[in-house]
Amino acid sequence: MIEGLLLDLSGVLYIENCAISGAVNSLQRLQESALRIRYLTNTTRSPRTHIHQQLCKLGFDIDISKLFTAPMAAHAYLESHNLYPYMLIHPDLMVEFEDRLKPASAHNAVLIGDADQAFTYNNINNAFRLLMQGLPLICMGKNRYFKQQDGLSIDAGAFVVALEYASGQSATVTGKPEKEFFLSATRSMHIDPQQVIMIGDDVESDINAACDAGMQAILVKTGKYRPGDEDKFSSPNAICVNDIATATDYILNKGH
Amino acid sequence: MIEGLLLDLSGVLYIENCAISGAVNSLQRLQESALRIRYLTNTTRSPRTHIHQQLCKLGFDIDISKLFTAPMAAHAYLESHNLYPYMLIHPDLMVEFEDRLKPASAHNAVLIGDADQAFTYNNINNAFRLLMQGLPLICMGKNRYFKQQDGLSIDAGAFVVALEYASGQSATVTGKPEKEFFLSATRSMHIDPQQVIMIGDDVESDINAACDAGMQAILVKTGKYRPGDEDKFSSPNAICVNDIATATDYILNKGH
Repeated sequence: MIEGLLLDLSGVLYIENCAISGAVNSLQRLQESALRIRYLTNTTRSPRTHIHQQLCKLGFDIDISKLFTAPMAAHAYLESHNLYPYMLIHPDLMVEFEDRLKPASAHNAVLIGDADQAFTYNNINNAFRLLMQGLPLICMGKNRYFKQQDGLSIDAGAFVVALEYASGQSATVTGKPEKEFFLSATRSMHIDPQQVIMIGDDVESDINAACDAGMQAILVKTGKYRPGDEDKFSSPNAICVNDIATATDYILNKGH
Repeated sequence: MIEGLLLDLSGVLYIENCAISGAVNSLQRLQESALRIRYLTNTTRSPRTHIHQQLCKLGFDIDISKLFTAPMAAHAYLESHNLYPYMLIHPDLMVEFEDRLKPASAHNAVLIGDADQAFTYNNINNAFRLLMQGLPLICMGKNRYFKQQDGLSIDAGAFVVALEYASGQSATVTGKPEKEFFLSATRSMHIDPQQVIMIGDDVESDINAACDAGMQAILVKTGKYRPGDEDKFSSPNAICVNDIATATDYILNKGH
């Protein structure tokens, strides 16, 4: 019996500044059902408030307290481990990490998000050198690519893997596909993972990761989806449908 | 019976614009012996002529025809496969690839060297998008890092691995540790690999790779060497000594 829903945002509801066809109406129908909903995003180019504003502008009526972001999870991790990292993150995201800022000499970790243009050779080399001194590597996600309006773009995961390869370290991931990220969202709904279904466009970070956490999952063929992604399912608890509209029909017709 | 010698350059003979202590004299002694010598470098920030000039300036008397570079091997590969790649390489190296230049619409491969400051997000994303169209990935080396005067710096291999991870492709390597790169140098000496010894500061790309190609190898504790590297030997045909001077004593005292 499905009682809760986890929704990926970029590639499922919208791409950059465009809502995906049928997504506004689908979300309304889901919100009018008895399902509890949480929104789960690895987007790290903008702060939570900005993502929320953007969703509102596109016509999505979302309660910001139900929005779980990978940067929030990273912040919680830094706080609980008393870390003040060298940050290779997007300048727009800095506002969420102001209380984690310390002078270079006090850095005790390296934090990687989707830094976009800030992924310069010198910044990446700074991060590398700190890792070689033994500082731990923390990243918000390990996504390979994401969908932009003009095509797929390389994501922060590639730069994390580059730093892992060069330094010999393994990164701690705070966002998807980290199981704890999924579980913190389900705990907030007071539902067991077995009663939750995840909808996303990333076969690894959304679908297989949710199934690993004990959930069901629906891969949509929008956003970063590429033909053949459904052949990479790691669990029989995953299915693939066209888009959020079809996923909504599927979930609501199951009588939940 | 050792009859030939392969010498890595950066980290063995010099670091940036400084000769390593004892290296000029050691090379002279090796050149005065009966050994045949080839120089094998993965340095891709400058063209072969510039590397040669720099060596001369530092006091090393080297015949340029005996200098085997990863960019030369990359050029030969492009030529034999009729490839005109999108090049993410150092601007100084472009002079060696002028005959491989074609307009963007004619690109049929992606070539990666140590592009240094040209490793921008946009350039890396350009390469990624071409790989997602199915263009093959060619790189000059997969080195993790190299030694600069102010410390270790992240090398092109990390960016190759980033692109492999994001695109799902595997790169073709033309320089070290590719076996053919070692064998082309030994063939030019008309000696079997079993009669050749390699000296380098990179346990993977120099030492283990040379052993895989059937040679003996000496790891020096200069350049990028880090304590514990000798524990990563993949073959009993490798040894570790302090520097090129000690390696020279070892080789010449063996009576070759």
